[in-house]
Amino acid sequence: MSHIPADVEELRQRTRTFIRDVVIPAEPHPGDYLDEGVLTDLKAKAKEAGVFAPHVPAEWGGQGVPIEFWSPVFQEAGYSPIGPAVLNCMAPDEGNMHMLAQIATQEQKERFLAPLAAGDVRSSFAMTEPHPGTGSDPSALATRAVKDGDEWVITGDKRFISGAELCSFFVVMAATDAEESAAATEGSGSAQAKMGQAATMFLVPKDTPGVSVGRPIHTVDRTIAGGHPYVHFDDVRVPTSAILGEPGKGFAYAQVRLAPARLTHCMRWLGLARRALDTALDRAEHREAFGDVLARQGLAQELIAQSVIDIETSDAMITKTSEVLATDAKEANSRSSIAKVYCSEAVYRVIDRAIQLTGGDGVSDQLPLVQYLNDVRPFRIYDGATETHKFAISRRASSKRRKEVAAGAPRLDIVREAR
Amino acid sequence: MSHIPADVEELRQRTRTFIRDVVIPAEPHPGDYLDEGVLTDLKAKAKEAGVFAPHVPAEWGGQGVPIEFWSPVFQEAGYSPIGPAVLNCMAPDEGNMHMLAQIATQEQKERFLAPLAAGDVRSSFAMTEPHPGTGSDPSALATRAVKDGDEWVITGDKRFISGAELCSFFVVMAATDAEESAAATEGSGSAQAKMGQAATMFLVPKDTPGVSVGRPIHTVDRTIAGGHPYVHFDDVRVPTSAILGEPGKGFAYAQVRLAPARLTHCMRWLGLARRALDTALDRAEHREAFGDVLARQGLAQELIAQSVIDIETSDAMITKTSEVLATDAKEANSRSSIAKVYCSEAVYRVIDRAIQLTGGDGVSDQLPLVQYLNDVRPFRIYDGATETHKFAISRRASSKRRKEVAAGAPRLDIVREAR
Amino acid sequence: MSHIPADVEELRQRTRTFIRDVVIPAEPHPGDYLDEGVLTDLKAKAKEAGVFAPHVPAEWGGQGVPIEFWSPVFQEAGYSPIGPAVLNCMAPDEGNMHMLAQIATQEQKERFLAPLAAGDVRSSFAMTEPHPGTGSDPSALATRAVKDGDEWVITGDKRFISGAELCSFFVVMAATDAEESAAATEGSGSAQAKMGQAATMFLVPKDTPGVSVGRPIHTVDRTIAGGHPYVHFDDVRVPTSAILGEPGKGFAYAQVRLAPARLTHCMRWLGLARRALDTALDRAEHREAFGDVLARQGLAQELIAQSVIDIETSDAMITKTSEVLATDAKEANSRSSIAKVYCSEAVYRVIDRAIQLTGGDGVSDQLPLVQYLNDVRPFRIYDGATETHKFAISRRASSKRRKEVAAGAPRLDIVREAR
Amino acid sequence: MSHIPADVEELRQRTRTFIRDVVIPAEPHPGDYLDEGVLTDLKAKAKEAGVFAPHVPAEWGGQGVPIEFWSPVFQEAGYSPIGPAVLNCMAPDEGNMHMLAQIATQEQKERFLAPLAAGDVRSSFAMTEPHPGTGSDPSALATRAVKDGDEWVITGDKRFISGAELCSFFVVMAATDAEESAAATEGSGSAQAKMGQAATMFLVPKDTPGVSVGRPIHTVDRTIAGGHPYVHFDDVRVPTSAILGEPGKGFAYAQVRLAPARLTHCMRWLGLARRALDTALDRAEHREAFGDVLARQGLAQELIAQSVIDIETSDAMITKTSEVLATDAKEANSRSSIAKVYCSEAVYRVIDRAIQLTGGDGVSDQLPLVQYLNDVRPFRIYDGATETHKFAISRRASSKRRKEVAAGAPRLDIVREAR
Repeated sequence: MSHIPADVEELRQRTRTFIRDVVIPAEPHPGDYLDEGVLTDLKAKAKEAGVFAPHVPAEWGGQGVPIEFWSPVFQEAGYSPIGPAVLNCMAPDEGNMHMLAQIATQEQKERFLAPLAAGDVRSSFAMTEPHPGTGSDPSALATRAVKDGDEWVITGDKRFISGAELCSFFVVMAATDAEESAAATEGSGSAQAKMGQAATMFLVPKDTPGVSVGRPIHTVDRTIAGGHPYVHFDDVRVPTSAILGEPGKGFAYAQVRLAPARLTHCMRWLGLARRALDTALDRAEHREAFGDVLARQGLAQELIAQSVIDIETSDAMITKTSEVLATDAKEANSRSSIAKVYCSEAVYRVIDRAIQLTGGDGVSDQLPLVQYLNDVRPFRIYDGATETHKFAISRRASSKRRKEVAAGAPRLDIVREAR
Repeated sequence: MSHIPADVEELRQRTRTFIRDVVIPAEPHPGDYLDEGVLTDLKAKAKEAGVFAPHVPAEWGGQGVPIEFWSPVFQEAGYSPIGPAVLNCMAPDEGNMHMLAQIATQEQKERFLAPLAAGDVRSSFAMTEPHPGTGSDPSALATRAVKDGDEWVITGDKRFISGAELCSFFVVMAATDAEESAAATEGSGSAQAKMGQAATMFLVPKDTPGVSVGRPIHTVDRTIAGGHPYVHFDDVRVPTSAILGEPGKGFAYAQVRLAPARLTHCMRWLGLARRALDTALDRAEHREAFGDVLARQGLAQELIAQSVIDIETSDAMITKTSEVLATDAKEANSRSSIAKVYCSEAVYRVIDRAIQLTGGDGVSDQLPLVQYLNDVRPFRIYDGATETHKFAISRRASSKRRKEVAAGAPRLDIVREAR
Repeated sequence: MSHIPADVEELRQRTRTFIRDVVIPAEPHPGDYLDEGVLTDLKAKAKEAGVFAPHVPAEWGGQGVPIEFWSPVFQEAGYSPIGPAVLNCMAPDEGNMHMLAQIATQEQKERFLAPLAAGDVRSSFAMTEPHPGTGSDPSALATRAVKDGDEWVITGDKRFISGAELCSFFVVMAATDAEESAAATEGSGSAQAKMGQAATMFLVPKDTPGVSVGRPIHTVDRTIAGGHPYVHFDDVRVPTSAILGEPGKGFAYAQVRLAPARLTHCMRWLGLARRALDTALDRAEHREAFGDVLARQGLAQELIAQSVIDIETSDAMITKTSEVLATDAKEANSRSSIAKVYCSEAVYRVIDRAIQLTGGDGVSDQLPLVQYLNDVRPFRIYDGATETHKFAISRRASSKRRKEVAAGAPRLDIVREAR
Repeated sequence: MSHIPADVEELRQRTRTFIRDVVIPAEPHPGDYLDEGVLTDLKAKAKEAGVFAPHVPAEWGGQGVPIEFWSPVFQEAGYSPIGPAVLNCMAPDEGNMHMLAQIATQEQKERFLAPLAAGDVRSSFAMTEPHPGTGSDPSALATRAVKDGDEWVITGDKRFISGAELCSFFVVMAATDAEESAAATEGSGSAQAKMGQAATMFLVPKDTPGVSVGRPIHTVDRTIAGGHPYVHFDDVRVPTSAILGEPGKGFAYAQVRLAPARLTHCMRWLGLARRALDTALDRAEHREAFGDVLARQGLAQELIAQSVIDIETSDAMITKTSEVLATDAKEANSRSSIAKVYCSEAVYRVIDRAIQLTGGDGVSDQLPLVQYLNDVRPFRIYDGATETHKFAISRRASSKRRKEVAAGAPRLDIVREAR
């Protein structure tokens, strides 16, 4: 990678070494969760090795890598399914740290970001709700926060709240009255007008009265400790200082969080895709059938080549998107939508092909590949399902072209219909 | 389906009703195995309902459906992931029953087929071996049987032996000396000559001294009770009467078993694909987003239409292949290879799309869909991986065309290269 | 093919021989149209060989093959891009003959069907109109026919009217007043009610005053002589006896024509796909690169195997659909929609892969393959574009499932949302 | 595009304006070649507008854009199928200019590069040969050059020599004796040793005695004037000064030419893909069916979104590859191989989908789309067919991984096979 600064490249190399020498040997058996004690131990080793929290600003104890260069480092972390947790750059914490660093008050940073960046506590992002609340369509937000004197009272149900069982606090998205959210005058204003409501984010410690973790939901992945359960907020009272940033800006902040967060998923999973391909290459190099090793058989070569192409194009798309993450929020949102669809589908294909190349071992716990497949399967749905993004991508393309034509670009579809 | 005889159609309808009214309500939670006691109870109900063992000849207690009409009935059975086990038409028993009915002696049928057909015992097919033994390439068979007086002594390791933990007997494939296998003079003779060895099938009760079930292998599917463990044969002594059919004909018999066995997998999994699509259709009918139900949104319609196409073409290919199963072994083998590749990939796609349509529920245990995906994932590998079949399909196509040209068909690729 | 009657199989074999020995040597250079004189000569030879008009009832001079067995014979015809024209089973004549045989009066049959079946004249089907008239959405029909005493006066513009330049008569679809079309009381009545209009088909000789062939439209195919030009009807007066079948039943008749017509396209193009694959197999057998012939190289094998799979599944789907063409119009319509999408896309892929296997020759006039690709490209659009069919397929699937659930089938998408 | 220098961005904008205002209105009717007189006129206008020869160093009259920023400008040029010819950045001239600028002597540059860069003459690259000469496998080179005193005598046949009919000179690749090519001691030495021969490039004016343009080959594209005919070299005598660069380095120079040349194809065709998508978007915006405009119908949105994704990922991959074109030849070769496969397939899909969105017009000369499809179809074959690249990509991946494991990376495919 040509344009990476030398210090980032050096960190990437150290991360690579750490993952291969320390993390991979400690991975749990396929299908199992990582033991919490082992995790704590590995985190300590990561700090010693100077590879902990690569994305966190140095002032909060991280490696301070600029966002446009997270990708090479996160890919190395993701080469092990437990790597991101060990390096403290796993969802949802990583996205929460990024958002807190951008938006939180100094006091909030000290109280919530500091221990999170240090890996001493974990966090959850409480947005998704049971139907018909907010899912793929954020405007359906049903959880509400009502101002009551100096306090806000939050009521509502959430589900698919990743990490809820082990976290210390939640970032809760709640609908708030647009007038109460008086401060929310710019930015997301017009969107809110359309939706008839504003949204506000709150920082809610898990031990706040009224907060309860409900029924667990078992998903097929094994990479996020603490599951994805229901979480209930029953008349949960928090002070005004619990508001993250400004009231009424919840949807805008969600975008601040989302564009990088879905891209870091792409980075981490792309690392895992590389792992899967390496596994398949090793098998193809050493396994014979029909008189030659697989690596010299064309139907294996087809699978390998397609996976290389998927990996390299995903990497290119992540790089292209990363460039604007820090500088152009709107373009970042649009590009990250495309990158998310492409990469989530691509990494799934890569792992799927690796399984084909490893035969029966690939679909069993003899190798971790089918667990990898299950780890990435949900990514084609969370942070916006492929189909939801396509819907948005198509509409944006139509809208952009409509404006070009309105601005004078000649229409290209005219045919002479008359005689 | 136009040409189905009335009695088969009637059985199909009854099977459909039985699955929906009796079997589906008894399904285990997604990710769990079916309880053995529940299974026993359901089998009894299936017998009462006259839908048990549809493929087994009436003389052995089944419904006696001719093989060219198994498909509609097996698809109904497969509409529940536990349906085939309940109806006693699940792999590997179903394939073993079919082979025994074709090849076994009357005495063997009474001893092994009768209780198997009645659902009183289960069986395993012990062919696959640890590398570098037989896997995708059957000629690498490493387990050996040596004649010793009136007995044969079997030695070797097997793995991925589906159902081994709960079965009563194994059909064991072992290499035997071509001369000892003197009776094997026709059929597979030339293939054996090439391979330098013959193979023979033995019926080996599990309690025979020297037989041991070894280390379990956990695969991602949940539909075959008894797992897919290692099985070891250490100087296992069996009488000559344990030989299934004739000595030396093991490879030929494997073909007898394989062509229908891989097609019945297609039938059962196609039933499950229909279940997945129905689940997605129900969700699309009732879940709103972006102002309308999913079923009226084009990106959902794309997924639905593609799945309908996959299902209907798979059904057509199974029908086309079934027609020759009983009458033309060579053509059946060739067509079933194509059908297997197509259907295994198609049913996977259908279930995968159903997950996209059901969102977060689809990748969790809120719905059974991601378990279905894991149930069918191995089918793209067992009974010949997609890539192995493609290799064979391509070679057969080349060989067929070569013969046509040799027989006078004009070559079509000639271009005038001279000036 | 197992169930083909002996006489059809014999005709298929003779057709195969005729195509290879007589037709292929007479094919025009890639990119050129067939010379009309050569065509006339070849038709005479086809009559002599007893392979002319396979689908036409014997009473009108054809071979009288039942519709459920057209596929094997049409595939042989389609093995040459000019084969169907030579055998007089090419669109649009073939579909028109079929419709006339079903619907026309005896007098109309003698006047229009007889010379058409004999290959003495050609016909056109005038339905598609300039935007915003009828295209993918038939209800937008803009051409009108108004009763005036004993005559009807037809006015409107048509385009993409295949064969118009060389035809003798048109089957014209025109909107007619629902009350004037009093006879049209059953069948398509409700659809018409929704559309607020009826439609009627007229048999209009090309030399009728007011009929004119307009501006040509050049499409990329070369298989239909007479192009696809505009055709204009300016106050064209025809007698009531020009009505095909009954007034007001135009949409119903269009369905009668369409289901078989789009399936016979599948049959013919599938024959051409077989030709393309054979061409590629010949090249793969004789062309070396990287030290071996292509046929033994895996990336070629991937292409070959995929094409075999596409061909065999298309064939199976055509067979499945043909079975109900004569017996169940509604099911035929639904299945032929699926078959059309699948086959049109599949034959395109097969020819596309054949081009990859033949390299530079494949995209040039050194071989006819890229012309084949251009010949089949429009089929993914005409008779309903792939996307239009998918829209309909999805809606039919939703509707069918909705009825099942209404009739008592348990909903499968229910998840427990409460605590 | 964030990192583009301001002057390149300014040139891109001017190019965009020039293409839309001047070039598009002058495009020939779909299927026709551009008139030579019109081309000459347009070239003059391009010079006036300061957009001519963007890639050519300023000293030779071009715009001097650095190679890592060619992509945005070439994409604008490619937005019209005749744009690159008008801007003098079309193959094969563009690749020849680049190679001459890198390798030619000052005298050769003045004689050959200067008029080429000025657009006064055209050139051809004579490498591909009739079978069994060099095609996808360059080592099969059959054309030979033998030293005879101060001259070299070239003998051999070439074909698919793009632009040969209108060019002034050829760059001819010929096999030369490794010892005669004494200067060729580094770089490609080992490869030559393996091949048992060296190769040398010669600059051969078309009017040299013994040079003749032979039989034309008609390919489906219309963008390269002068066709792709056979060219024959019969005892063609050229002086030693005709050698391009050094003798014996032909294969190395071919790589120098190839990596950028295939990437500039990607750039230009990506521009055309954008044109196709814009055409489809315009149609989708204005064409109604089934009660709404296409742009708001999901099956159209699927096509549009997929095309946006294809375009953006192609763009990202080109950018990623461009970065190393000037700095790392080996990495550039490897990445450009991946980019070529991906982009050639992607642009084909984009144009293909645009056709689906424009219906019958799309496959006819009512719109230029199907001609675009034919223009890009050969790109999936020339400069290395997709399958040839996949073969190489797979082998490189295996080789790279083999070295990593040899250097200590743990093998990932090990399973415990023993008991």
